[in-house]
Order: sequence, then C-alpha cells, then structure tokens
Amino acid sequence: MSSCSADLAPLLGGVSNSSAAADYICNQFTDAGFAIDSTYLLFSAYLVFSMQLGFAMLCAGSVRAKNTMNIMLTNVLDAAAGGLFYYLFGFAFAFGGPSNGFIGKHFFGLKEVPQPSFDYSNFLYQWAFAIAPPVSPPAPSPSAPSSWPTSFYSSFLTGFYPVVSHWFWSGDGWAAAARNSGESLLFGTGVIDFAGSGVVHMVGGIAGLWGALIEGPRIGRFDHAGRSVNLRGHSATLVVLGTFLLWFGWYGFNPAPSTPSSGPTAPAAPSTASGPPLAAPPSPPPSPAAPPPSPPSLGSASRRATGTWSTSATASSAASRPSPSGCSVVDPWAAIICGFVSAWVLIGLNKLAAVQVRRPPRGRAAARRLRRVGIIFTALFAREKAARAALRAVHGRGGRLLGAHIVQILVITGWVSCTMGPLFFALHKLNLLRISAEDELAGMDLTRHGGFAYDHHDEDPSARGGSPGGGFTLKSSPTPVKPKATANHV
Amino acid sequence: MSSCSADLAPLLGGVSNSSAAADYICNQFTDAGFAIDSTYLLFSAYLVFSMQLGFAMLCAGSVRAKNTMNIMLTNVLDAAAGGLFYYLFGFAFAFGGPSNGFIGKHFFGLKEVPQPSFDYSNFLYQWAFAIAPPVSPPAPSPSAPSSWPTSFYSSFLTGFYPVVSHWFWSGDGWAAAARNSGESLLFGTGVIDFAGSGVVHMVGGIAGLWGALIEGPRIGRFDHAGRSVNLRGHSATLVVLGTFLLWFGWYGFNPAPSTPSSGPTAPAAPSTASGPPLAAPPSPPPSPAAPPPSPPSLGSASRRATGTWSTSATASSAASRPSPSGCSVVDPWAAIICGFVSAWVLIGLNKLAAVQVRRPPRGRAAARRLRRVGIIFTALFAREKAARAALRAVHGRGGRLLGAHIVQILVITGWVSCTMGPLFFALHKLNLLRISAEDELAGMDLTRHGGFAYDHHDEDPSARGGSPGGGFTLKSSPTPVKPKATANHV
Amino acid sequence: MSSCSADLAPLLGGVSNSSAAADYICNQFTDAGFAIDSTYLLFSAYLVFSMQLGFAMLCAGSVRAKNTMNIMLTNVLDAAAGGLFYYLFGFAFAFGGPSNGFIGKHFFGLKEVPQPSFDYSNFLYQWAFAIAPPVSPPAPSPSAPSSWPTSFYSSFLTGFYPVVSHWFWSGDGWAAAARNSGESLLFGTGVIDFAGSGVVHMVGGIAGLWGALIEGPRIGRFDHAGRSVNLRGHSATLVVLGTFLLWFGWYGFNPAPSTPSSGPTAPAAPSTASGPPLAAPPSPPPSPAAPPPSPPSLGSASRRATGTWSTSATASSAASRPSPSGCSVVDPWAAIICGFVSAWVLIGLNKLAAVQVRRPPRGRAAARRLRRVGIIFTALFAREKAARAALRAVHGRGGRLLGAHIVQILVITGWVSCTMGPLFFALHKLNLLRISAEDELAGMDLTRHGGFAYDHHDEDPSARGGSPGGGFTLKSSPTPVKPKATANHV
Repeated sequence: MSSCSADLAPLLGGVSNSSAAADYICNQFTDAGFAIDSTYLLFSAYLVFSMQLGFAMLCAGSVRAKNTMNIMLTNVLDAAAGGLFYYLFGFAFAFGGPSNGFIGKHFFGLKEVPQPSFDYSNFLYQWAFAIAPPVSPPAPSPSAPSSWPTSFYSSFLTGFYPVVSHWFWSGDGWAAAARNSGESLLFGTGVIDFAGSGVVHMVGGIAGLWGALIEGPRIGRFDHAGRSVNLRGHSATLVVLGTFLLWFGWYGFNPAPSTPSSGPTAPAAPSTASGPPLAAPPSPPPSPAAPPPSPPSLGSASRRATGTWSTSATASSAASRPSPSGCSVVDPWAAIICGFVSAWVLIGLNKLAAVQVRRPPRGRAAARRLRRVGIIFTALFAREKAARAALRAVHGRGGRLLGAHIVQILVITGWVSCTMGPLFFALHKLNLLRISAEDELAGMDLTRHGGFAYDHHDEDPSARGGSPGGGFTLKSSPTPVKPKATANHV
Repeated sequence: MSSCSADLAPLLGGVSNSSAAADYICNQFTDAGFAIDSTYLLFSAYLVFSMQLGFAMLCAGSVRAKNTMNIMLTNVLDAAAGGLFYYLFGFAFAFGGPSNGFIGKHFFGLKEVPQPSFDYSNFLYQWAFAIAPPVSPPAPSPSAPSSWPTSFYSSFLTGFYPVVSHWFWSGDGWAAAARNSGESLLFGTGVIDFAGSGVVHMVGGIAGLWGALIEGPRIGRFDHAGRSVNLRGHSATLVVLGTFLLWFGWYGFNPAPSTPSSGPTAPAAPSTASGPPLAAPPSPPPSPAAPPPSPPSLGSASRRATGTWSTSATASSAASRPSPSGCSVVDPWAAIICGFVSAWVLIGLNKLAAVQVRRPPRGRAAARRLRRVGIIFTALFAREKAARAALRAVHGRGGRLLGAHIVQILVITGWVSCTMGPLFFALHKLNLLRISAEDELAGMDLTRHGGFAYDHHDEDPSARGGSPGGGFTLKSSPTPVKPKATANHV
Repeated sequence: MSSCSADLAPLLGGVSNSSAAADYICNQFTDAGFAIDSTYLLFSAYLVFSMQLGFAMLCAGSVRAKNTMNIMLTNVLDAAAGGLFYYLFGFAFAFGGPSNGFIGKHFFGLKEVPQPSFDYSNFLYQWAFAIAPPVSPPAPSPSAPSSWPTSFYSSFLTGFYPVVSHWFWSGDGWAAAARNSGESLLFGTGVIDFAGSGVVHMVGGIAGLWGALIEGPRIGRFDHAGRSVNLRGHSATLVVLGTFLLWFGWYGFNPAPSTPSSGPTAPAAPSTASGPPLAAPPSPPPSPAAPPPSPPSLGSASRRATGTWSTSATASSAASRPSPSGCSVVDPWAAIICGFVSAWVLIGLNKLAAVQVRRPPRGRAAARRLRRVGIIFTALFAREKAARAALRAVHGRGGRLLGAHIVQILVITGWVSCTMGPLFFALHKLNLLRISAEDELAGMDLTRHGGFAYDHHDEDPSARGGSPGGGFTLKSSPTPVKPKATANHV
C-alpha cells in the first residue's frame, strides 16, 4: 500500500500535508481491500467446509448399508480431530514463517500470529482445506477399517501434510514458485501448484494407496476365482447428493487463493483415492484482480458423466474425480480438452484393471491384488500430473517447468511413502487397521455402533398388540447387539 | 466513474494536478466496487448452482424408486451438457453485443470477452442460471423419458433460450426496458422482468408443456376409467431436502442482478413445469444500492405450505412452485398478497384438473388428456404473469406496461412453441422421447442403469452361511439385468 | 463517517474546498463499507437460513419413519409462519427504536424503516435467526405433536421472543451492554451475549422445557417398569446430513454480527431443546475489524463425537449440541477447554438421567418424569451460561459481569415461563397439543398426511400382471387412509 501513497502523494501537490493526506486515503483503501478479501476468503472457506458434508454423503452412499454409520462417524471424527491437529501443528508447519525451506516453526496453536484478523480468515481457509476429504480420505477402502485408526491416521496426515504444502506454497518453501528470497531452489522456476494437484491430491492419494496396499481388499471384493465383484453402494441418491455438494464446495476450493492481497497461497484439491463419481466442477473464475481466470471444465463433466452413464450404475461408485487443478493458468478450451482426455484415461484404466482382474486364474495372492490396485491409483495421480505438465510443455514455459513438476511427483511420492507407509504398517501389525472378518461381514454398524443406520420398520409393537419387549428398539445400554441371521434391517 | 472524477476534481481546487489526483482516487474506488460486485456475483452464482442439487433431490424424491437413478443422472448430464452449450453458444446469443435487437453475435466460446475478470464472474452467474433446473427442466414428465433425448433437449434449450434473454435483458434487445440506444421498441416502456418470470419461467414452462403434450402421460397415470392416479414419489424426505435447497439457492437467484455496477441484467427463475412442492423462498433484499428491495414473500410460503398440508401428502408432489419474480419493484405487503393469491389459484387449478379428469367417462383419447395438461400449465404461467401485470396495473405505470407484458407472453409462447415443439415432435417420431412400455414399467434404473438406486438388503451371504454366488451383487459387466417379477428391491 | 471527514479535511490543507473534498471522499468510503457489510451480512443470513434445512433433516432422521413427513412439514411451516410473524411484529418488538427499555415500537410490517437497503439486509439476517430452529424448536418432543399447534406455538415464539432480544441486543434495551444512552441498567455492565446463548438458547430451551413438561413423553418412551426406552430415529444418514448442515450454517450464525458498521447486534444460537447430535462447529473468526476472533472449538467436536461414538448409535439422537456462544471474547485454547468440559457435562447428565429413570420402580407419575426432563434441560442451559460466566469470572471483568449473567438467566427463565407456559397449558387443555394415542401409534404420516414418507415398493402392478386396483398408489382424494395393522410401510 506504500505504493499507493507513493503514487498519490505527488498528485496532491498543492496540499499542505500531501503525504499525510495520501497515507490517510490509502489506508482507507487498504482497509476496504482487506475487508473484501476477508469476506471472499471466509465464504470460500465455508464452501470448502461444505465438502465435508459432500464427502460424508458420498461415502455413506457408496458403502453398503451395514457400514453407513461407521463411515459417517469417521467423517465427523476426521473433521474434528483433523481440525484440532491442524490448529496445534499443521498451520505452524505450513506457514509458520520466517523459517527454513523445509518446515515452518511458528504459530503453534495459533500463538503469536501477526495481523490477527486476516490471519484468522486465512487460518480458517487453510483449516478447511486440511480437513477436507481430499487430504484425509476417511479410509483407504471405505468399509473395512474401524474409526479409531482412521482418525489417528487422518490426524497424523492433517498434522503433517502441511510440511509438503510448506515446500510448495509457503514463501519460505524450497520449491515454491514465489519465494520470499530470490529464485526457487527447484530449477529456478519452482512448481506452479495453484490448486494443489500435487500438494494435496498426491499426498492424499499416495497415503490412500499405502493404506489400501497394506490393508488389502474388503472381504468379498474378489470371488473365489479372483474375479472382481462389485460391492454396490446402498444409495445412489446419497452418491449424487454428495457429488453435487462436492461440486458446490469446489467453488470455494479452486478460485479462492487468488484474492488480491493474499496471492496464490494454498488451495487444495481432493485426493483421487477412493474416488467418488461424477464430481466435475467448472472451476469458476478467480476473484477480481486475478490474471487469467480459469474456465469451466465443462467437457470434463460431460465426458465423465457420459462414461458413467454408458456403464452400469455400479460403475459410478468407481468413477473418478476430475482434476480441479485450480487451473489458474489454463484457458477454457484447454480445460475442456483436459476434461475429455482425463475422462477417457480413467475409463481406460478401469477397463485395464478389470482385464487384469480376470486374467489370473485362481491365484488370490494378496501381493497380486495389491499391485493391481497400485496401478490404478498411481495412474490416477499420474494422469493429473501428466496432463498438467503436458499442457505446460505444449504452450507453457517449457522444459525447466516440466522438469520441476517431475521432481515434485518424485519428492511427494517419496515423502508420503516414507511417513505414511510405516504408520500404516504399524497399525497393521498392531491389528488396528482391520476389524475381524466376522465383524466385517456382519457390518460395523451392528458390531460397533449398536444398530443399523436405518430403521424403517418402526411400527410400535403395542400398535398391533405386540409385547413391548419385541420390535426394533434398542435398550439404552451401549452393549453391541449380536447380529442375527434373520435380522430384518432395511 | 468519470462522474466521480468530474465531481471530485473541482473539489480538489488548490491541488497542483487535481484531475490526475481525482482520477487516481476514483480509480481505486472503481476497483473496490468491482471487487465487491464480483464477490457478490460469484457467491450468488454458487447459490444458484446449488439449485442443481436441490432440483436433483426434489426430482429424485418425486419419482418412484425405480426411476431414481435415471432422473439423477439426467440432472448431472444437464448441468454438464448445458454448461458446455452455454459456453459455446448461449452466452454469445444472449450478451454478445454490440449486436442487433434479435440475437447476440460475439463471445462464442468466451472468445474476446472484454473486461476479462468481471465478465468471467458474470459469465459464471449467467451460466448457473442457464443450467438451472428452471431453464432446462430435466424432463417434461419426470420418470418416462430416457437420458439422452433429455440431455439433447436441454442442451438445445440452454444453447438457444438465451435468444429470449437477449430480447429482454441485453442492452441491445428490442424489448429491453433499459436499452443502450434510446427507447424500448416495445411501447417505449419495454418489459420489467427482473427475475425472469417471462424470460426463464415461461420459456422453461412452455417447453415443458410441449414435451408433456407430445410425450403423453406416464403409464398408470390414469386408470382404466380415465381417473387420475397419484404416482407417489418414493421419498418425501428428498422432496423436502430439495425444496429447502431450492429455497436456499433462491437467495442467489433473485437479488443478485442488482449489484451496483452490473445493473439489473439477467437473473432467471425456475420453470413451473414439473413443479416441485413447497418451494416458497422469501426473495431477499437486493444488494446495496438497489432501489426498492424486494421483501420476503412470506405469505406465499405460508399459504402454499398450508395448501399442501391440508391435502394428502401425495398432493405435495404436484404442488407448484411460487412466483419468485424477482419482485424488485414489489413492496413486502404486495408480495404477501401475491403469495396468498397465487397459492389459491394453484389449488383451484388442481381441483379443476381433477374435476376435468373425472368427467370424461371412459374416453382416454390422448388429445383430451393433453388438453387437460395444457390448461394446468398455461394457467400456471398465466398466473404469474397476470399477477405481476395486475399489480402493475393497480399501482404501476399503467396501461402501456400492461400491454408490453401481454406482448411478452405472446411472443415467448410463440417463439418457444416454434422452436421446441418441432424438436420434441422430431424426437417423438424418432422414438427417442419415450422408452418402451416394458422398460417404463420395469423402471429405468433396472433396464438402463444396471440396478436400483437403493440396496438396503446387504447382508453378506457368507455371514449367514449362504453361498457366495447368491445375494445382491451385480457382475461388473454392464449388461442390463432383466427385471424379475419377484425382485425384492427396496 | 464524520470522523473520517474530520480527520481528512485538515490533511487537505491547501485545497480550496478541503471539507467538501473530504466529505466526498469519505462518503465514497462509507458507501464501499456499506456494500461490503451488506454483502457479508446477506450471505451470512443465507447460511443461517440453511440451518432450516439442516434442522429439517436432523429432525426427520431422528424420528421414526412413520412421523417423518409430519416433522418435515412442521419445519417448513415454521419457516413460513415464523417469517410472517417476524415481519409483522417480531422485528418491530426487537429493534423498533427509538423506544423504551422493554419493547420496541416501530417498523411493524417493515413500515418506515430508515436507511432502506441496509435495514433490509439486517432484517433478512434477523429474520433468518428468528425462524432458525433454535428459536422455534419444531416440537418439544419430536414426534408426538401435530403441526397446527406447533406452528401456532412457533409463530407466537417468533413474534414475541424478540422482546428478549430487545432487552439485551437493542441499543434501547435495559440490559444491553452497549446502550444508546449511557450505562446499562444492569449493574452498569449489561450482558455480553454476542451469540445469543441467553437470548436465543435459553428462550428456545425454556419454551421447549415447558412444552415437554406439559405434553409429556411419547408413548413407548418408558416401558411398563418405567425404564427408559430408546426410540431410535429412522435414518442416521439424515442425522449426519442435518448435523453437517447445521455446522455449515453456524458460519453465518456466529461471526456475522461483527461486521464493521453493524456492530455486535443480534446473532442467535440453537436451542438445546430436542438437541441434535454432533453439531460442533468451529466458530470462525469474525469479519475484519472485529476484535479478538473466536477460534475453532475443536475440542468440542472431538470430545462430543467421541462421546457419541463410544455409546450406541442410539445415543447420538440424544447427544447435545455444543455451545456456539459466539465466543467473540474467548481465546482458541479456552474454547477447546470449553468444548471438552461441556461434552463431559452433557455425558454426565445423560448418565444421571438414565440412573434416575431406573430408580423409581414402577411409579410412572407424570410429575416425576417431568422433573427428570427438567433437570436435564435446565442443566443444559446452565452448563452453557455457567461455562461462559465462569470463563469471565476467571479472566473476565469479574464480579459485576457474573452477577449480570445470573440476572439474565433468572429474567429469561421467568419471562419465557410466564409467556410460553400458559400458552402450552391452554393448548393442552384444548387438546391441541397432543394427538390421540391411536394416531400417535399409527404414525402421523398415515393419519394426517395420507401416507408414509417413503415408498420403495413401487413396482407397477401391471408389470407383474396384477390388477391396477392393487399396489401402493393413493387416490387423489385427501381423505386420510386408516392405518392397518398389517401395513407394509417401509
């Protein structure tokens, strides 16, 4: 804002105290700009938060009815525990400058944050990102794991993922494109990761990959012949509800980083692990003063939805999520091409996975199955990164930037593997990652949460002369009810 | 903003360079105003987008369970395909000035839009309107049509409806109240269509009418004696969820056009075709600087909800949608009266329709049934236009404006009939508009989408000692499953 | 803004007309600030409105399927009727100054509101609060009452609760901290009720308490031995959906009052009556210019969710709602402690209630049961008020403020008891408060609304060769269907 004063003061030539007058006027403009940015940032953060809701519904609809309560509770716990950890550690690791290029070291528990009000808005925004489903996919495979380890895992991720965001988004980060001090250490260009394709997508995705590898598939996911069996979600309505809510939340997710005064700091984007279907949000133009606005990736939606439509409804549960990529630098037509291409890549990968599943005659070796999963997930990340890098290579800043992005892929893969892999392995060894086969078959809602999510058979027993002991009601004791073979849950 | 400079410069009399100083200060104000408007417009657009979600849920709840997936997929496709077409053609037809009074001719594919950032915000806003359920009612009758033709139809509508909005909303439009060059060609007054009662309601409604006329009623909609049979939606919860979401979205829909700098350009409002129940949003006051703010149409909600309540729950599926009408010129008390009146008109029309249905003893001639439908729909539009015109006639600008509104009704009816009627007729002749009777009875989810939306019977067979071959799972092949007479879908 | 001119004019010393120039510039800043505030306030109001949706879903999920339609309709009616009454009376009673300290007396039906546009934004915001679930809990016990009396009750509450908000929030109120004229009449300090813990929470809560006391428990809520029986809600998914929506809406609820120019006027917060589970929103930092921003009450969410998790799913329906408390004066760490403590207090109270329920061997005297309920509810309010007061006592302004808050508790309890108690008693005597035992057992959806909320058995009879007379459809006549003992509702 000093530039405002510097510009204005000379223009107020004949004024007795021209610099004081200019300062006064310019300060008012600063305040107004600050108020506008904060308003913009806060409401964007609320939209991002609504993705929690979207993801909860999407997950709930995608699992079987018997695990619905479990997955939803996991989502709520994620938001709460993740928020606590981000408040205590995450924000500090990511943005606690001045610091070195590797990790931030101030503002733990929001202590001594400067410029209070703005930083609080910004904190809320970053917090919404950090707890967003992307960063902490509630569970590698959505119905098997129990809540505690998942929360532990996602707290861990929420507390430590910010290290990666420090590298690429903080002004102190070694690989940031816009460094506080001089050139980026990464080929002098740094990485352009406006919407966190790498910082968020890949972090969540690689973590999910390790979780899936170590935990293994759900019981019944493959039949005795090793063929893939679709475990249908119990409610397509919830899936669509969640999908649209994610789309809605995306409008806070992608454009918000470009508020005039905040600059392109730290947006994020959903992981590709346990990918939900159909979410293909047109990323809206960034706020005023942002340079080339990102356009609707309409083609993405179109093509992806089509892909889903032409396959069975079952496929929708497996359909991927688009590359939001906060394409702050991509033109509308390029975004449409990007959407089309990635939809086809995804469809192709799904076909490939199915083929592979069919080939191995009987061998149900865990290792083999895991590799299959790995191919899918890796390809999913690769797709996004590659698409972006390719676009850049074609009409971007050429070779050095492409190189920087490849380094980014390698570095993130390495870091997340080294930190999350051992964590999952430890949880696995402690038998915390997976519930017993019996419990898994019965459904976690019954064994862990005292009943099923739905109870549509609610005639009061006395209404038909029944005894009060019968019927659906549960006693207030929290003892889990044993599953009965004849349970009439709906 | 030159007016700002013109005002300010003289006041800065003694300043050496008073006009430069005034320009500098005024430019800052312009920028701030632009940032505020864009923020307001963007978040309003997000709210309008959330109506997609509301409409998806409303539709899903209003149809029978067997068609839930189909209707939801249609909604998703609408948003995607409609967005693509609006990007390619619609925006250009509507606002591609300078142009003639009939149709815009610039900005195809957003090419060479001036003032980039603002126009992107505005584009997003207009796009959200164009794909909003109102404009492209996913299906004339909500469960019969298949997805492809519906998408084709709504892409067409999204691509070409903007012609109408050009007439009434663009500064170049022949019937716009605020023309760039001189008086409106329509009686010198033009039409006040702040919230698109005509431009959007009527367009969507007349299109829906033609679709309903040509497609005919769903199987089972009338019994052998020609009596109306209520086909209940499968979930009142989804209906209420959708209703409230639409209400929520309305807050972006109605007031947004009045941002200080954008002026009352192009809002839109939901069509009355395939009318959802209960949606009675109080249209909130427009943004600052808007002249007489529109008040909550509370009475509307009250009365309409009451009407629904006093009839059976079934009626709620048939209840109409209120007249949002972006009543930028209507006082609160008038809005309440308007709400009460239109609720009674609607209830009366429903009664009338039921009476008519009962009268014809056996004759189930399609033509007769169609006429019935026509009466309802036409009356629905008429109600809205008439109410608004009447209000104006009473304390408005009198005769000329009333005449202009009548011309608007005629012109829109004619235009939409001439463009959409033949389209529906062609689709009908090509057998694309309607699925086979067998498929319709079995439900489209089973025949087209590989399964039902819900799967609550998810006990794993092995949990009760069953064989793994049994149970609910679908094979991964997309071949449609044949409906079985004993299918236990829930 | 005169202060702006007063500051700026001297700085423009050499200008020929320095005071006119300063006025001109300052007016522009005023306009910009007004536009920013209005935008902020409007979107916050929309978020608060979305809590209607959240509460509708939460209630729907928490009741049994047979009462789903009834509870949802009640929610819609509440919004509509409450809005009408707030428009006619409530706003005037609350903010109709200048007035005495007891009740406002201007602006009935929004007549002669000054400063039109701003007051409309503010009205919308206040209206959203007034109809928010908190203020008008749709029903003391969520499934027994019928819609009409509930609407009557909530209209009454929405029309008259503003008297209390006048006392504490209006500049004329006798107990307001920020009075227009001199010191607060309440110990000279007044009450700090930024988020309406007292003004809204307690009002709704005490009203709910009286309703519950007079109406008594639902049939089947206690078994023959007087033991508590959990009446499970029919859908945990809806409960979680509603919970997240409330959390989302909270972001409009808590911080909005602190827009720069509006000052901390009149936010509100959900009642603790018929408390929904898990809603533990981190109250985000207020807008710019607000002093010490309130932090995420993360611990609250964490602990509360944990509490729910460790008990059976049934418990979630009974779990309380956190203390949003618009803690504009509480630091982050204090909010976390506050959350933890109140979660434990709530869990303890629930245990206590269960113990009490078990003790009395057979005596099912209504009075006894009512007292139990009373203990719970009173403790719930007390918890919040006490927690806040305690925090203040520890590091607040000490004794006088604590005293003022105790007076607030007593005054609100007295006022609501004196006004709502007789209303409920009258409704009870007129047999309007409760439906017949038969209807209650059959479910209100069937007896009052013509059918159930869900209809998943929708195979068309002709699809399996059945006769058209059979199946699920209801005739269009609104005559209520008699409940059958063998009804197969799902």
